[in-house]
Amino acid sequence: MPMLQVSLLSGYSNELKERMTQALTAAIAGITRANPEAISIWIHEFDSSNYSRGGMARQPSTGAADPTSLVHDYLMAMEQRDLEKARKFLDENFVMTFPGSGELTSLNQVVELSKGRYRFVKKTLESTNIAYEMDKIVVFVNGTLYGEWPDGTSFESIRFIDRFEICNDRLVRQDVWNDLATAQR
Amino acid sequence: MPMLQVSLLSGYSNELKERMTQALTAAIAGITRANPEAISIWIHEFDSSNYSRGGMARQPSTGAADPTSLVHDYLMAMEQRDLEKARKFLDENFVMTFPGSGELTSLNQVVELSKGRYRFVKKTLESTNIAYEMDKIVVFVNGTLYGEWPDGTSFESIRFIDRFEICNDRLVRQDVWNDLATAQR
Amino acid sequence: MPMLQVSLLSGYSNELKERMTQALTAAIAGITRANPEAISIWIHEFDSSNYSRGGMARQPSTGAADPTSLVHDYLMAMEQRDLEKARKFLDENFVMTFPGSGELTSLNQVVELSKGRYRFVKKTLESTNIAYEMDKIVVFVNGTLYGEWPDGTSFESIRFIDRFEICNDRLVRQDVWNDLATAQR
Amino acid sequence: MPMLQVSLLSGYSNELKERMTQALTAAIAGITRANPEAISIWIHEFDSSNYSRGGMARQPSTGAADPTSLVHDYLMAMEQRDLEKARKFLDENFVMTFPGSGELTSLNQVVELSKGRYRFVKKTLESTNIAYEMDKIVVFVNGTLYGEWPDGTSFESIRFIDRFEICNDRLVRQDVWNDLATAQR
Amino acid sequence: MPMLQVSLLSGYSNELKERMTQALTAAIAGITRANPEAISIWIHEFDSSNYSRGGMARQPSTGAADPTSLVHDYLMAMEQRDLEKARKFLDENFVMTFPGSGELTSLNQVVELSKGRYRFVKKTLESTNIAYEMDKIVVFVNGTLYGEWPDGTSFESIRFIDRFEICNDRLVRQDVWNDLATAQR
Amino acid sequence: MPMLQVSLLSGYSNELKERMTQALTAAIAGITRANPEAISIWIHEFDSSNYSRGGMARQPSTGAADPTSLVHDYLMAMEQRDLEKARKFLDENFVMTFPGSGELTSLNQVVELSKGRYRFVKKTLESTNIAYEMDKIVVFVNGTLYGEWPDGTSFESIRFIDRFEICNDRLVRQDVWNDLATAQR
Repeated sequence: MPMLQVSLLSGYSNELKERMTQALTAAIAGITRANPEAISIWIHEFDSSNYSRGGMARQPSTGAADPTSLVHDYLMAMEQRDLEKARKFLDENFVMTFPGSGELTSLNQVVELSKGRYRFVKKTLESTNIAYEMDKIVVFVNGTLYGEWPDGTSFESIRFIDRFEICNDRLVRQDVWNDLATAQR
Repeated sequence: MPMLQVSLLSGYSNELKERMTQALTAAIAGITRANPEAISIWIHEFDSSNYSRGGMARQPSTGAADPTSLVHDYLMAMEQRDLEKARKFLDENFVMTFPGSGELTSLNQVVELSKGRYRFVKKTLESTNIAYEMDKIVVFVNGTLYGEWPDGTSFESIRFIDRFEICNDRLVRQDVWNDLATAQR
Repeated sequence: MPMLQVSLLSGYSNELKERMTQALTAAIAGITRANPEAISIWIHEFDSSNYSRGGMARQPSTGAADPTSLVHDYLMAMEQRDLEKARKFLDENFVMTFPGSGELTSLNQVVELSKGRYRFVKKTLESTNIAYEMDKIVVFVNGTLYGEWPDGTSFESIRFIDRFEICNDRLVRQDVWNDLATAQR
Repeated sequence: MPMLQVSLLSGYSNELKERMTQALTAAIAGITRANPEAISIWIHEFDSSNYSRGGMARQPSTGAADPTSLVHDYLMAMEQRDLEKARKFLDENFVMTFPGSGELTSLNQVVELSKGRYRFVKKTLESTNIAYEMDKIVVFVNGTLYGEWPDGTSFESIRFIDRFEICNDRLVRQDVWNDLATAQR
Repeated sequence: MPMLQVSLLSGYSNELKERMTQALTAAIAGITRANPEAISIWIHEFDSSNYSRGGMARQPSTGAADPTSLVHDYLMAMEQRDLEKARKFLDENFVMTFPGSGELTSLNQVVELSKGRYRFVKKTLESTNIAYEMDKIVVFVNGTLYGEWPDGTSFESIRFIDRFEICNDRLVRQDVWNDLATAQR
Repeated sequence: MPMLQVSLLSGYSNELKERMTQALTAAIAGITRANPEAISIWIHEFDSSNYSRGGMARQPSTGAADPTSLVHDYLMAMEQRDLEKARKFLDENFVMTFPGSGELTSLNQVVELSKGRYRFVKKTLESTNIAYEMDKIVVFVNGTLYGEWPDGTSFESIRFIDRFEICNDRLVRQDVWNDLATAQR
């Protein structure tokens, strides 16, 4: 039954509007327990000449990048050790933590850290979840790792979760948890 | 600039409506990059005699429990080993995973599992994030653990993250990651 | 998908609003071929202090009587030959036609007319349909007649249809068709 | 005073929207007794990218044929004995009744039935009224008949009414009443 | 045809809302040349729990005093030389000009100034007009003066106009023009 | 917080809509004491096929000329003694008053009147204020005069105010006050 009317300045892409209606529908469904099928959203788009605040026409904001794509693209670049590409996703104040690593601030540190831990590691993604906070977007990716230990034996099905914070379309924080230490004992 | 008008049958609590406006504002802000201060939401409430679908009056859905409270209350009950209370938060098909545990289905299994690992453990919460999906709510809690090892020595500042899935106000899944194994090596 | 928002001064009864939502839903469904289940209607009610035209507050109109009840009550009064009651439903310019009768203007003429035709007649209603025109409401009632011929033999299952025009909650015209003549031949 | 805002996916023809605003205005006027001149309707049209239900874009329904035209065209085809054209308006489960005919299911039966009754008959239409029901549209046409009896004498001014039921732009039922039997006695 | 929907937090008085609908109707009529009778305004009032900006409930502003009453009451107090009452309408930075006076800042100066000009003067009001500016309200009062010259002879029908600026329900400026000098020549 | 939704037939110019949003914002700010920055206006424009009153499509009104431009252009034409151009701004029933003039009805009378008073006079505008009344627009222009007395000496900083009434884009009345008489004494 809940019905939303969203008034926006025109100019946002269809992809962004689709992302928006899905996020709003899911939030309304989660909070009211209404069936998503019963939730309708109507987007009114307005030319800038048809909107004013303080009596003045206003311009639309630019719209955010898709946080799922942003995180997946970053993870893929890291898996391929394409650090140059990966760095483009990072805010200048980017901070990372891995199990036992303390806070790292450079991707080179990540590469160093991993050297004694495994020959390579790749991710099988299970879920990506997005939590919208007032001042940031938090993206969670969980699934399993597979790869090779330093001695060349292979491993797989080791659980992991990554927690990312995004501000202004840049990653400002990444926190990683996994069961590699448990698996190695 | 984005402006939302939400039409609802009346009957939802002010607490629920506040939770809803915050979730909607954060989603809109995250997706459009509009400043939350510039996002206004108007909730139109309708008596059941003023809403119809298919020409028939409809009743409102019941509204969901606050997912943050639900998860925090469950974690507190577990920390206090009040299993009876903790079970009330669980769906009958509840499944848990911990580092190295495989899938568990009973809280007693958790208690057994923890016996050889530590005398007690408590959580210091840093963040709770809520991701609304079409078919479930996913809640993430991360922070640090403190407690005592089996030999009585204390530990602290060990990172953890819990991932919960909620359907119909019950926990259906809990996945736990932490650095206990790393810390013990 | 069609969604209607109806803005009204408050004061109309729930019964009237239900009648209105059903009529609007049926019209929209008939014209767009949308499934009635997919058509939602929200009624905004406004105190007279919250509506103005020409800068002045306005009062709501009184609302019309239910045309189905009006016609059914009139037919019941006529069937029971309670002419006094039946006359209360009639406009002062009321006109009737029956098969072969020409235009009649008084209920007494109806009673006279029927004398040679049958001892009594009663109606079994099948359908009542309401057509809203800009300047009047037209109500159609069809079904079958049963009763006794002047010679005392009974009849039944004789098709009839009545067409009524309503203005200002009064019947201004009734046109009757039936198969009595065919049945008698 | 009543004011309607109709939200639709774009794509409906101006003719359909005009038919819709007239039907809605007449229904509102009939039910509230507001003057039609005081009833305004605003149609908001939305691109499919600006409407979602269940978080998914939806397509508009196709819109129904004008029921007045449909019935008038069918009646004209029948009057001209263009049965091939007339059949195109009929649902496969079409049923008709005429005075004394019982239920007929084929237009050929109509032609047979009429043979002994008149050489030809034509209609002078007085009113066409449309009643929108949840599951069908009911159209009523009344007026007078003129034509020639089997003996070649002419007749005129014989009252008739036709009741049609339309589903999915096809006639599913036609019920005919008239005073031919009365006139012939 | 223009139709306005005004969304407000509830709590404003009916008198204020009436003033608002009249001001909005007049502005719309003046700018679009639509007949005021064709301009309708619907005020949606919202409890504070049904409005949020930045995800937080907000309180309504207090509403302004009626500028017409404010100015008329001030003029009456001045005419009656009730300076104590008159001062209550003034902002601490109040400035006045009269013909030939330069800028005055105290009501006592006005009284001094008038001493040589007339024994008394009273106003017959013809029009009061209100101009809403973004940062202030400007009220104009024009009409004619009558009274007695210093020599005791009476005068009347001398044109005047007063221009007032109001901020925060206080007069911040009064400019007076009249034909007293012309009349005295 | 106040939020306006204005529904209009499309066709008005951006300049007119800007003038409208400023007038509405200022009126709302003045009456509610809300900060103009907190007042948003959304204009819904409708094709004529998407609006009906009484079930019939309607055409938009033409929109009024900018009253500020109209008055300024008239004053400029008068200052330049371009009477032919100035007359185009006047209604056929135009009336003027100046200090001591009584009611004048022709611009030639103004020219005559001024001959003995000054060689020329020009205006320095300080403020232009617009008051929208239900049946007219009242425009006020105030500032100071400069020019030359009949004897060739110059004057300046003499206060004036003009009050104009506009109906249907024509000036119907002009009332002038100034301190010329005071200055000459």
